[in-house]
Amino acid sequence: MEARALAWRDDALVVLDQRVLPERVAWLTLTTPDSVAAAIRDMAVRGAPAIGAAAAFGLALASPRDFDRAADALAGTRPTARDLFHAIETMRAARAAGEDLVGAAQRYADAIVAACERIGVLGEAIVPSGGRLLTHCNAGALATVDVGTALAPMRRAHAKGRRLFVLADETRPRLQGRLTAWELANEGIPHALIADNAAGHFLSRGDVDAVIVGADRVAANGDFANKIGTYEKAVLAARHGVPFYVAAPLSTFDAATPSGRGIAIEERDAGEVAPAPFRALNPAFDVTPADLVTAFVTEAGVVKPADVRALVDRAKG
Amino acid sequence: MEARALAWRDDALVVLDQRVLPERVAWLTLTTPDSVAAAIRDMAVRGAPAIGAAAAFGLALASPRDFDRAADALAGTRPTARDLFHAIETMRAARAAGEDLVGAAQRYADAIVAACERIGVLGEAIVPSGGRLLTHCNAGALATVDVGTALAPMRRAHAKGRRLFVLADETRPRLQGRLTAWELANEGIPHALIADNAAGHFLSRGDVDAVIVGADRVAANGDFANKIGTYEKAVLAARHGVPFYVAAPLSTFDAATPSGRGIAIEERDAGEVAPAPFRALNPAFDVTPADLVTAFVTEAGVVKPADVRALVDRAKG
Repeated sequence: MEARALAWRDDALVVLDQRVLPERVAWLTLTTPDSVAAAIRDMAVRGAPAIGAAAAFGLALASPRDFDRAADALAGTRPTARDLFHAIETMRAARAAGEDLVGAAQRYADAIVAACERIGVLGEAIVPSGGRLLTHCNAGALATVDVGTALAPMRRAHAKGRRLFVLADETRPRLQGRLTAWELANEGIPHALIADNAAGHFLSRGDVDAVIVGADRVAANGDFANKIGTYEKAVLAARHGVPFYVAAPLSTFDAATPSGRGIAIEERDAGEVAPAPFRALNPAFDVTPADLVTAFVTEAGVVKPADVRALVDRAKG
Repeated sequence: MEARALAWRDDALVVLDQRVLPERVAWLTLTTPDSVAAAIRDMAVRGAPAIGAAAAFGLALASPRDFDRAADALAGTRPTARDLFHAIETMRAARAAGEDLVGAAQRYADAIVAACERIGVLGEAIVPSGGRLLTHCNAGALATVDVGTALAPMRRAHAKGRRLFVLADETRPRLQGRLTAWELANEGIPHALIADNAAGHFLSRGDVDAVIVGADRVAANGDFANKIGTYEKAVLAARHGVPFYVAAPLSTFDAATPSGRGIAIEERDAGEVAPAPFRALNPAFDVTPADLVTAFVTEAGVVKPADVRALVDRAKG
């Protein structure tokens, strides 16, 4: 993208409003922790790594006396993305160490972008020679401040002149697939949106060489939560022998959660699925078991699910 | 429903316009075969059995000299639903036998409704005691003139006072799940719409006792085509040991097509998935292999996939 999806400017956090993209490019200027919390809750800012960075800047906007309350408010916005809590912990530590909080938040955001760039470098090797990929939701620059997770290997492969064709699940109910299509179009990467229902059809026809998705939280055993529907696509990929990769920075890995059963699944408003008087249920995430994952692509390497615990222990140590 | 989804009245075919339901209840009065063909192509009339009945009445609207051209026009509207071709063959035979074509079309429609009623009677036994069902697309009265296929056993169980809760996939891109929700609400059957992405989540949580769907074409080996996304749900149901039933009248069974590989899959306009300038692919159906089907519920009995060939041979003989 021309600019990062969120950035610190003139003592405020400026974020690209993802609720109106790609039809309109509009920026929100956020000057309080509560306005950042609202932007996260309403999904003006979305994607686990971007939520983490926004929360870090949100705490840089808090007055010293308001820090703990602001941290609680931010923590209460969305339960599933690990990065949100990782960012809050990082900022708490920075505060305890007497660091400048704007500087700490900027370092947090820069580290996310650097991790994504490294994911692109390491992940290019997993892009199969056929180059026909499937992705779900948006795990691009919008979701990660810049570069992206699932999209980073695609950008890198495309920049090297490799042939690609990306099927992007539209990702109901919020249609984040359109954000992915917008990013891919901006990069000139050939692609097509499909109804989420069609992913199994294309997999069964042999039209997909690999699936790459992002993650909202990876448990210590390699189970992971991601946007609702990810689990369905993982089951279908396994049935058709198609590799299934999860691209995520270490900030998304949760050493304290042993398995997917411990991951809280956010239930969002039924109106996102259908307007009243329709009745609807709207779980925003699902959990995919580790045995359906071919490998995780992180800034510290490409690792099998069985090696996730060692990875997170090493990262902590 | 209070009235059939399509009916012959004053020398015309009157159809409930399913493109504007459930927001608006509007009726189209069709007086020529070509207006019937347009209503089928544009999905004002949809659902394999209802398409068949509409085509039968469409041929009753043709002048004797125009019959063959009208039959070709109707046959060219949508390739996947077997009932369309079955209805045209039935009307050709009625014409060759010198029958009154309005009477023949009315008998065709009445036979569909009678078959659906029988599917309800035979299918009530497959509704599990837990009563928690998942369905995909709309296989209700709207899709079948009246009563429905997948919904017929639910209506019957509900009428007997059995406890039910139906999860209805919203069924992108055309959102026929909302038609199902509208029918279930009209009947007072507890239900909720879900994003198609969420079906796997609910199946993995043990929240579904059985899946019941309709069909557009059943091949002689028990492979069947149905609305895009059906295959995904069948794979997920099998993974979680949840029975997967297909409710369809014999008019949907295609003895001449040996397996699912021979079923033509309609590609519809990309604009149904996303507006320009988005690029999209839009297969309207997928094929589910017979081994994922627990049983077919037909007016002639509840049969295993392995017994489909004997069923269709018996029906022909």
